[in-house]
Amino acid sequence: MTNKSDLTLGRRVMAMIEELARYSDEPGRLTRLYLSDAHRAAAEATLGLMRQAGLDSHIDALGSVIGRIEGSNPDAPALLIGSHIDTVIDAGRYDGTLGVVLGIVVAEALRSQGIVPSCPIEIAAFGDEENARFPTNLSTSYALSGHYNPTWLDSVDQAGIRLRDALARFGGDPAGIPALVRDPKRYRSYLEVHIEQGPQLEAKGLPVGIVSAINGVTRARATVIGEAGHAGTVPMAMRRDALAAAAEMVVAVEHTGSIRTDTVATVGVAQVQPGAINVIPARVDFTLDARSPDDAVRHAMVNDILAECENIARKRGVSLTIEPFMDSPATPMNRNLMARLEEAVTGAGIPPLHLASGAGHDAVAMAALCPVAMLFVRCKGGISHNPAESITVEDADVAAHVLIEAVKKLTSC
Amino acid sequence: MTNKSDLTLGRRVMAMIEELARYSDEPGRLTRLYLSDAHRAAAEATLGLMRQAGLDSHIDALGSVIGRIEGSNPDAPALLIGSHIDTVIDAGRYDGTLGVVLGIVVAEALRSQGIVPSCPIEIAAFGDEENARFPTNLSTSYALSGHYNPTWLDSVDQAGIRLRDALARFGGDPAGIPALVRDPKRYRSYLEVHIEQGPQLEAKGLPVGIVSAINGVTRARATVIGEAGHAGTVPMAMRRDALAAAAEMVVAVEHTGSIRTDTVATVGVAQVQPGAINVIPARVDFTLDARSPDDAVRHAMVNDILAECENIARKRGVSLTIEPFMDSPATPMNRNLMARLEEAVTGAGIPPLHLASGAGHDAVAMAALCPVAMLFVRCKGGISHNPAESITVEDADVAAHVLIEAVKKLTSC
Repeated sequence: MTNKSDLTLGRRVMAMIEELARYSDEPGRLTRLYLSDAHRAAAEATLGLMRQAGLDSHIDALGSVIGRIEGSNPDAPALLIGSHIDTVIDAGRYDGTLGVVLGIVVAEALRSQGIVPSCPIEIAAFGDEENARFPTNLSTSYALSGHYNPTWLDSVDQAGIRLRDALARFGGDPAGIPALVRDPKRYRSYLEVHIEQGPQLEAKGLPVGIVSAINGVTRARATVIGEAGHAGTVPMAMRRDALAAAAEMVVAVEHTGSIRTDTVATVGVAQVQPGAINVIPARVDFTLDARSPDDAVRHAMVNDILAECENIARKRGVSLTIEPFMDSPATPMNRNLMARLEEAVTGAGIPPLHLASGAGHDAVAMAALCPVAMLFVRCKGGISHNPAESITVEDADVAAHVLIEAVKKLTSC
Repeated sequence: MTNKSDLTLGRRVMAMIEELARYSDEPGRLTRLYLSDAHRAAAEATLGLMRQAGLDSHIDALGSVIGRIEGSNPDAPALLIGSHIDTVIDAGRYDGTLGVVLGIVVAEALRSQGIVPSCPIEIAAFGDEENARFPTNLSTSYALSGHYNPTWLDSVDQAGIRLRDALARFGGDPAGIPALVRDPKRYRSYLEVHIEQGPQLEAKGLPVGIVSAINGVTRARATVIGEAGHAGTVPMAMRRDALAAAAEMVVAVEHTGSIRTDTVATVGVAQVQPGAINVIPARVDFTLDARSPDDAVRHAMVNDILAECENIARKRGVSLTIEPFMDSPATPMNRNLMARLEEAVTGAGIPPLHLASGAGHDAVAMAALCPVAMLFVRCKGGISHNPAESITVEDADVAAHVLIEAVKKLTSC
């Protein structure tokens, strides 16, 4: 491990995290929604940090902060480094912001070491990753890869404000969206550092890990309908208990989600009707969320879950409807980029662990532009989307050194 | 079966049911809560029906309607026949009222046949069986068996009205409660006819059945606490999913409730927190309702359920608390009374079926005064506490004939 570090880089990361955590839409907790006043303030602060690092920087038409260093070969395809500065409501300070700050730290390090990269480097601080205000999904990064859907401008937040109007108030401009699209020939790769948001690195005692893929997701809503009855008077053999049936299905979902490598399957919601202590449940509505880094594996898992639930329903004489409403494909990470990250991790004396990302990231949108890879940083207890989100200065330092090494490898040719 | 009946008695039962169904606290549906205006009106109508049948009748200090025929031997202990005329909210018309009406039909039949019973017969129309207004339980019948708890007078309904004040408005009188207590030496037995509220008679094609016992009930509240986490990022093997654990417990409750004779066990309520599609559930609160006609069997079943749930919790590393808050003993029916009912049922050409009562009845309170027995009448689909509650005129006729025969046997000595 990075025995010799004096933690200068880790401390620099934490100082910038601290600075950006000041910008919140709500007093007393961190909430920074896309195109809010706090987002504008954080974007301007990020712009200042990028300029201070010597980057040619601006806030783009959709609110993303973009900084650029030209390379010694200005015609070489650029390396992108990014993440996002919007947050969920009552957020932690690392989710997204860590990756932006680490991009800036790379630029600072290259400048302080007098290194001019062979190709341009762009740092992006996206603004719409958390899906916490508008029903859009990665809109600011999809704009770069040419997949911005203009109907998104008419989507509305909970206060009834249209994205188009919020963007105008922020200082953005829908007319500028087409010009945001990057030419794939001009970009070589995209790197993103992010907190893991899970417990695997902590469990293995590792500060960082290399993402192998961002999981694809299937989501579905299920309804089990049995028959209500008096809990005292209907014999067990004559029941069609919707909750007992749904319970068996929940156990089957968990089991089926556990038997393949790297898959997860979760029932997060279950609502019982009529919900009285002395009434046999007539109806249960529940949700399914199933993920895998491999779409074929995910589809096989979901098919098994559906078949098992249908068997349970048939056996018990209850009716079952399952309606999938999301089938989002996996985003595999680029093997060459993973290899460069692995060299940098190994070079820091850390065993390289590959792990799938269960959550989505801007890298999903950027994969439509160029090869992508991600580095995960250990977070305390695997906790995220929570003020208790926490990383150590030591791990931030490791992440900075690994990213700098990887960027050097990728930009020296 | 009663081939020769012209259904005169069944039609008489249905006519009285029809008349009493007119008295409701709510327009358009049947709701007759203890001590309400509709209860008063129904009590007066019942009083009228009893007087018309030649009974010496009054409304007692707690609102029960009591009618009495003296026997040829006025010193012989009396036979009680009863049930209740209060209802749940949005009720059916048979639950309770059927047993009251059948008592009146017995009196009418004895009179029309010129039969003077050897012992007195009392008909009781109780008023507080459904536990639908005040948090009291069988208060009006417990008053007769000497177990009225005076603190019940201070219990309050959902509108904040004290039972004491509602009783005064009804025309009752707390000062009269002690005088309601019957001398056990003056009462030989209590008979109650009630709709089954379950599907067993319908399934077996029988109009009536003989109750063997009123089940004892254990109720408990359980809380499973696991650990919330991101549904995408926490590997299956590292989860402590409160819902998956609770689901396994629900299946265990159902199984454990199914392996002994005549037991039932139900989870009617299950609430999941935080309850989001992409969050592993952290907490589930659920209820248990377990019943058996045999208290030792019920306790063994509940102990097995607790042990199984604790095993599941231990295996999964979740915490479990189960707090039993009700342990209501079973009420066995009197063997001699059951034999008289069985003779009457067999005499009507009907195979005698013994079945446990899953629900509680006034007979539970009256068992503290004298031997009790119950006859169940088939109800459509086993449905009760619902406007769809339904019995046939043919079954009402059978019940009337069976009850009259049993009363003749019990009062001719």
